Amino acid sequence: MTLSLEAARQVLQAQPFSRLLDAELVQFSDAGVELRVRVAEQLKQQHGIVHGGVISYAADNALTFAGGAVPGPAVVTAEFKINYVRPAEGRALVARARVIHAGKTQAVCRCEVFSVVDDDELLCAVAQGTIAAIRKRDDP
Amino acid sequence: MTLSLEAARQVLQAQPFSRLLDAELVQFSDAGVELRVRVAEQLKQQHGIVHGGVISYAADNALTFAGGAVPGPAVVTAEFKINYVRPAEGRALVARARVIHAGKTQAVCRCEVFSVVDDDELLCAVAQGTIAAIRKRDDP
Amino acid sequence: MTLSLEAARQVLQAQPFSRLLDAELVQFSDAGVELRVRVAEQLKQQHGIVHGGVISYAADNALTFAGGAVPGPAVVTAEFKINYVRPAEGRALVARARVIHAGKTQAVCRCEVFSVVDDDELLCAVAQGTIAAIRKRDDP
Amino acid sequence: MTLSLEAARQVLQAQPFSRLLDAELVQFSDAGVELRVRVAEQLKQQHGIVHGGVISYAADNALTFAGGAVPGPAVVTAEFKINYVRPAEGRALVARARVIHAGKTQAVCRCEVFSVVDDDELLCAVAQGTIAAIRKRDDP
Repeated sequence: MTLSLEAARQVLQAQPFSRLLDAELVQFSDAGVELRVRVAEQLKQQHGIVHGGVISYAADNALTFAGGAVPGPAVVTAEFKINYVRPAEGRALVARARVIHAGKTQAVCRCEVFSVVDDDELLCAVAQGTIAAIRKRDDP
Repeated sequence: MTLSLEAARQVLQAQPFSRLLDAELVQFSDAGVELRVRVAEQLKQQHGIVHGGVISYAADNALTFAGGAVPGPAVVTAEFKINYVRPAEGRALVARARVIHAGKTQAVCRCEVFSVVDDDELLCAVAQGTIAAIRKRDDP
Repeated sequence: MTLSLEAARQVLQAQPFSRLLDAELVQFSDAGVELRVRVAEQLKQQHGIVHGGVISYAADNALTFAGGAVPGPAVVTAEFKINYVRPAEGRALVARARVIHAGKTQAVCRCEVFSVVDDDELLCAVAQGTIAAIRKRDDP
Repeated sequence: MTLSLEAARQVLQAQPFSRLLDAELVQFSDAGVELRVRVAEQLKQQHGIVHGGVISYAADNALTFAGGAVPGPAVVTAEFKINYVRPAEGRALVARARVIHAGKTQAVCRCEVFSVVDDDELLCAVAQGTIAAIRKRDDP
């Protein structure tokens, strides 16, 4: 892992959008990353559940941080796919991601997103995607 | 199309997260939908470009509104996939989505997301996903 | 699990394309399914490695059989996504799939495809998709 | 386009798996590629329709040939996603793919797969994926 948890947290805090969503890195290690988003009212959709865009943000960003482990910290999400399996309610989202396979310039990662309801975690989405090193990016 | 543009805009306005991101429905018709997000500072990541989570929100929500055309207005995004092809800069994002195939309980839709730079639109992401009617949802 | 391994094997044998590819169900239980494809010369591409279409067949079919566990045996793959992470060589492919979340009419499943090289299994692809019950299908 | 239609056809013919499936390149130009698969009995599943694995093969290979336009002929499919929208019947499959965005080392492409029934083409699947140049591949 090229960054410490503390340094990774500073990267997250340097993202205005992650501050807007009040996201927090709980874990950042070779075993994977855990991103937590506190569910404020403003993150919901019209039926009172968490907006899918918040869940996809959490998956996308957790995948990116997980992928930063091997190609190095300067990475972007090249693509990902997400399946929503349950409406997200409760007080927080937890997205856990890890590297499945890492090459020199990119890593394939997977992620699960849970909603924290009372003391339980309920799976609400699963994602899979490619994280690419910026220096190899096609559009610099 | 089951909703008017005006009614669809009210649905969007009823989403706190869409209000937080200052999203606007520009078009909503059988030909497809257009969702526009003004790029405020708080929607960026650490390098000054639009956060991928904002782009995935725009794609997700445009897909959902597009899919609302056929199964009916009570729909959710069941799954989608997005490829990011260019960093998003400029003053706005425009996401255009349309139905590719509609069945009774779900629709497959595609979306393109552009960044508006000066007077040009630059493709920054393409997405494809399934929009499902809520009444047939597995997890009510 | 609604089918026995023996019954599931008969379903596989009833698929002419699976017979053409000489696929075999090694495992079929609540814990997941394992599909094995012997790598004959005719399953390769021009560089001597297994054709990606064979790998996607193995992933697709393993996902479908895994998803048949909960909605019932009459299922189809509604959609899936696959990341190829390593060229597939060796004498066989092994695709293992399992249900991640099952609803009444569909299941979200994940799959890993390995190539069997000597006595090792090397991960060559990961997939994720939705398996839908046919009776709820949009296009009967 | 770096290859002529004739040269691209030779590449396809050099793939044993494509010969097994009797696939043919009908078009190969900057405007996109068209791959046609004649539906023999051995390409079906147990209900008499074309096996999903054949459709995913057609999508995968059409995407790869389309992507070979820009990064150059030595390419592989890095990942793709496919939505099946209608059972494939009839006497042939036609997969049409084109580049959506091309960078130096990879291209994002889209594909539609149709079944040819009598004189009609019916959309049976849509796909989207990333085609990567082999020389930049992580696993040489």
